[in-house]
Amino acid sequence: MTVATGDTLTRLREQKPLVHQITNYVVMNETANATLALGALPVMAHAREEVEEMARLAAALVLNIGTLSPHWVDAMLIAGRVANEVGVPVVLDPVGAGATTYRTATAKRILSEVRVTVLRGNVGEVATLVGVDAEVRGVEAIGAAAEPAEIAQAAARSLGVVASVTGRVDHVSDGERTLAVANGHELLASVTGTGCMSSAVTGCFLAAKPAAALDAAAEALAAFGLAGEDAARDAKGPGSFHVNLYDALAALDPATIDGRARIS
Amino acid sequence: MTVATGDTLTRLREQKPLVHQITNYVVMNETANATLALGALPVMAHAREEVEEMARLAAALVLNIGTLSPHWVDAMLIAGRVANEVGVPVVLDPVGAGATTYRTATAKRILSEVRVTVLRGNVGEVATLVGVDAEVRGVEAIGAAAEPAEIAQAAARSLGVVASVTGRVDHVSDGERTLAVANGHELLASVTGTGCMSSAVTGCFLAAKPAAALDAAAEALAAFGLAGEDAARDAKGPGSFHVNLYDALAALDPATIDGRARIS
Amino acid sequence: MTVATGDTLTRLREQKPLVHQITNYVVMNETANATLALGALPVMAHAREEVEEMARLAAALVLNIGTLSPHWVDAMLIAGRVANEVGVPVVLDPVGAGATTYRTATAKRILSEVRVTVLRGNVGEVATLVGVDAEVRGVEAIGAAAEPAEIAQAAARSLGVVASVTGRVDHVSDGERTLAVANGHELLASVTGTGCMSSAVTGCFLAAKPAAALDAAAEALAAFGLAGEDAARDAKGPGSFHVNLYDALAALDPATIDGRARIS
Repeated sequence: MTVATGDTLTRLREQKPLVHQITNYVVMNETANATLALGALPVMAHAREEVEEMARLAAALVLNIGTLSPHWVDAMLIAGRVANEVGVPVVLDPVGAGATTYRTATAKRILSEVRVTVLRGNVGEVATLVGVDAEVRGVEAIGAAAEPAEIAQAAARSLGVVASVTGRVDHVSDGERTLAVANGHELLASVTGTGCMSSAVTGCFLAAKPAAALDAAAEALAAFGLAGEDAARDAKGPGSFHVNLYDALAALDPATIDGRARIS
Repeated sequence: MTVATGDTLTRLREQKPLVHQITNYVVMNETANATLALGALPVMAHAREEVEEMARLAAALVLNIGTLSPHWVDAMLIAGRVANEVGVPVVLDPVGAGATTYRTATAKRILSEVRVTVLRGNVGEVATLVGVDAEVRGVEAIGAAAEPAEIAQAAARSLGVVASVTGRVDHVSDGERTLAVANGHELLASVTGTGCMSSAVTGCFLAAKPAAALDAAAEALAAFGLAGEDAARDAKGPGSFHVNLYDALAALDPATIDGRARIS
Repeated sequence: MTVATGDTLTRLREQKPLVHQITNYVVMNETANATLALGALPVMAHAREEVEEMARLAAALVLNIGTLSPHWVDAMLIAGRVANEVGVPVVLDPVGAGATTYRTATAKRILSEVRVTVLRGNVGEVATLVGVDAEVRGVEAIGAAAEPAEIAQAAARSLGVVASVTGRVDHVSDGERTLAVANGHELLASVTGTGCMSSAVTGCFLAAKPAAALDAAAEALAAFGLAGEDAARDAKGPGSFHVNLYDALAALDPATIDGRARIS
């Protein structure tokens, strides 16, 4: 792959794509601010009365089951089907799949009823969805019975998605090619919703590069990881790191980003 | 108008009025913190089981349709009618009106069933509600087919409200007089929910000056804009600006604020 | 009591207990981040479809009625009963009890249907629940007709809980012993949700010390208060204080914390 994170980011900032997010209560403000800081336009809308119309207007749709309930799941399915009809790329973040039956079943249901472009989760969540043993404590992956790169490839093949498995090193696979992304910082794990933010950023990059989902997903993680590295520089802990992260997303420089992206 | 932002702010901090907010999931924490930083007391309550009682206790009611759904709209209508009965001023923030049919129809329904004191929106949202062509992308105004000051005046006349149209320069009109407020900073547009915060701050000022809604609405925008100017001073991007904004709201000095307010 | 805040904090960080929170929309991100900064794992789940399963997985359950509605109350009752069955300690934060009939009735209903381990509220909320006259404005305690220490003791005795009444000085009672905790900083009152965070932190400490609820509750307030003291040091206002608070929670040092805890 020719790394083109900078080009994609430049296009994203020029186009300011609308990224429709049906996500959880915990991180809505945070993923909206990450989207805005990066240069795209977030919109949160979850009522069945409007998700069809909003999804049609969007350049990407991000579904996140972090605080799911039946009405919200219905809205995700409706929005997802419309996005499929009109060719809007869909990101699914299966937050907590593996922790409860309801989360696992809902993630599987969305994957079966909606053509998901990118599945972005931690190793425990994605392992659960391909039937590999894994431990998920609440919404945290504790471990899995296979290597993340293998799980990403298996998920891509069996689920027909680009699988984006984040962790210390991220692994993004379309079933044929598997890319490793080694950007990021351990402080990302100290702030709630950074996984959800990486899904939102994936939606932004997909909106700017819809024809190349594998590359867009890997570039998104490189960009987000780089922002994490920048944010860590003056951080005194999770609070200041969290604040710096938005500053860093806004300050990402397309001219230098490719030299720093560690995609292989 | 004699600018009296300082006096109103002093009264607000003495009275600590309760500002009842039925608002969207994305910004609840942010508008509560802005309300508290300014010196008033926020309360979020949306259940039909309690909105009547809470609205009666409040000194202002803020309705915001940013993540609307039928139960929430019902609660807004109930709370709005009670507020009207007992003379509590009502602010409506028609987030995303113009983006989807549901949002436009809901904003119109609230305006028809509740006597709204101040309608606070961006130019695209308010233009939509008075039938002027406008483009709204998600919750962002892209453009409108008339000048903001004209749209504010038209909205005030046709809807019977004080119309508060925010943008690079804000325009606040009661149909007779139209005030321009030139405070603010471009970084306000880089943080999600700053529009919603300006609606909450409008509710705070209305609570402290209920007999003069036009002045209260303009003073609120001047105060919020000044806080934005102060917050921008040491900001490194949207994250640090956002943090500074609460510090700046709390630090607003009634003694010097009138000299800096740019209301004309 | 032998102060053992440091030991409990060390155990908490080793065990990383899962703290299930069914809480309000305003503070979800904040209590999740406080939990994570302290060293435990938060999970937010409120659907009736999954709360039983999640509560069984948890080491503590925190119920908070800050933005209650019937579905959420049902979920709290279900989760609370399961927690009781399997011996998971339960914290109840009766946000706004005394402000509306619905909140007071809901708090009482939870207390009657669930065996609550620790009731953590402000003096107005707890006074309301034991029938002492109090004024609650929205979610703020304005005053009560008895001393906080007496109210804590009365609540502990009549409700069969450890009562944790926070204020300038906190009072924690099991009906026999009443501890005063004098840590904290006035800036805590300038940020929304710090009361809710103290309830979440109480859940974390209970998870690490389930056999001694009175001590755990007092230690939690000492630790949270100390973080508040640390956070205030370089704060310029409520915004920077809020950010510093997460840094301070993460930086709490078990080796020195007991020397600074003011529990008597």
